[in-house]
Amino acid sequence: MPFEIIRPIRVFLSEDKQLFVALKNIFGYYPGNIFLYKLAFRHKSQAIELSNGNRISNERLEYLGDAILSAIVADHLFKMFPYKDEGFLTEMRSRIVSRAQLNKLSEKLGIDTLILANNESNNVFRSMKGDAFEALIGAIYLDKGYNFTRRVIIEKVINQHFDLQDLENNDTNYKSRIIEWAQREKRSLEFVTLNEVGHGYNKQYVVDVMVDKISLGKGRDYSIKGAEQDAAMKALLHLEAEKIVT
Amino acid sequence: MPFEIIRPIRVFLSEDKQLFVALKNIFGYYPGNIFLYKLAFRHKSQAIELSNGNRISNERLEYLGDAILSAIVADHLFKMFPYKDEGFLTEMRSRIVSRAQLNKLSEKLGIDTLILANNESNNVFRSMKGDAFEALIGAIYLDKGYNFTRRVIIEKVINQHFDLQDLENNDTNYKSRIIEWAQREKRSLEFVTLNEVGHGYNKQYVVDVMVDKISLGKGRDYSIKGAEQDAAMKALLHLEAEKIVT
Repeated sequence: MPFEIIRPIRVFLSEDKQLFVALKNIFGYYPGNIFLYKLAFRHKSQAIELSNGNRISNERLEYLGDAILSAIVADHLFKMFPYKDEGFLTEMRSRIVSRAQLNKLSEKLGIDTLILANNESNNVFRSMKGDAFEALIGAIYLDKGYNFTRRVIIEKVINQHFDLQDLENNDTNYKSRIIEWAQREKRSLEFVTLNEVGHGYNKQYVVDVMVDKISLGKGRDYSIKGAEQDAAMKALLHLEAEKIVT
Repeated sequence: MPFEIIRPIRVFLSEDKQLFVALKNIFGYYPGNIFLYKLAFRHKSQAIELSNGNRISNERLEYLGDAILSAIVADHLFKMFPYKDEGFLTEMRSRIVSRAQLNKLSEKLGIDTLILANNESNNVFRSMKGDAFEALIGAIYLDKGYNFTRRVIIEKVINQHFDLQDLENNDTNYKSRIIEWAQREKRSLEFVTLNEVGHGYNKQYVVDVMVDKISLGKGRDYSIKGAEQDAAMKALLHLEAEKIVT
């Protein structure tokens, strides 16, 4: 196909040759609209100010990429774990797309070296690397569409940099995880069985996790043990969202 | 095409004829794999128990649909509002996919009448209708793929049931919204300018929103006013996530 011949020539002549090549090495394809990718690497500390006063950086692409990444990971986990419930899938996803993981991933893939930011930014903006990774996903999505992005994320990111089995074995006992955390942080922790909902076959227990007497998450299940796990998982998600546990 | 002739015959002969027709009326197409859609309407109060002890309901599909819907709405808003920042886009999306909106939408589209649940469920599970709507999106995605789902959501849901202009005009002043809320609920509210980050051209202000002396959200911007809006928006997202404000 003529495109396959023309593309390398265009790349070779481009002033963005280095970026073309870096992206080809990371993801295995040449970008179409290189401006999207350049924007993805522009941290807000290097925002461009337009004549209308708008400031342009990778923040909008990060917003988009974050949502696309969540959807792709949700889909992948849904299919990889056909017998696991939505609590498990939610927790697995939050491990894959946690800020700490995305920062690490950005370094592993060499994305961090492509970021355009002020010198001091790396210290001030602790999530800069992960944010750029998300922005890059936004750029790939706009450039190549959902199905292409999905393939790239699964083949070049998840399959190569995550061991789902490992991630699964690692601390899926939410109750023991939150107990360990509370002991370490010297917080009071209590599991309170609140009430039952439903009747007969559908009877479920509701359990509340109290940290320092404040409710952090209610769980519901057909057994008290299950409801405790569910509640602990929700409390952990809450603590992770607050960046108290990572 | 032969499929176009065969499809109506298959529908007519199917024991799920009613569901086929209802879905065609709502979304304008006949479902492929009807089992996915039947599962989407099966509330956990009517879960099926398998021989291995697993219970099957629409909860996994809801997890998937929630992520897919977020991605589609993020993409749509990104393109509809090319000059708005990610804070605006995040707030707009949270208004579209709020539990209250999804419940309402479920009723408008007539999805709620298709739900299979125990009689008491409607009172016990307040988000049952919205959950089924999300599960349905998960089913469409698995049945027809991302691009098809995206078109359906934009054409049959967003364009017909949301006025983005209205949604935008409605209370984008986050600071005044949280002030009104605090007055109504008799909570103490304070905006505290914490510090500045960056230098010269890149100097930004950091503002903290304190409700009853507890920090609910830090905002950052190039002006104190902007940082206050950002902080108020984050505090509102926090309160919405906790279902304190809807």
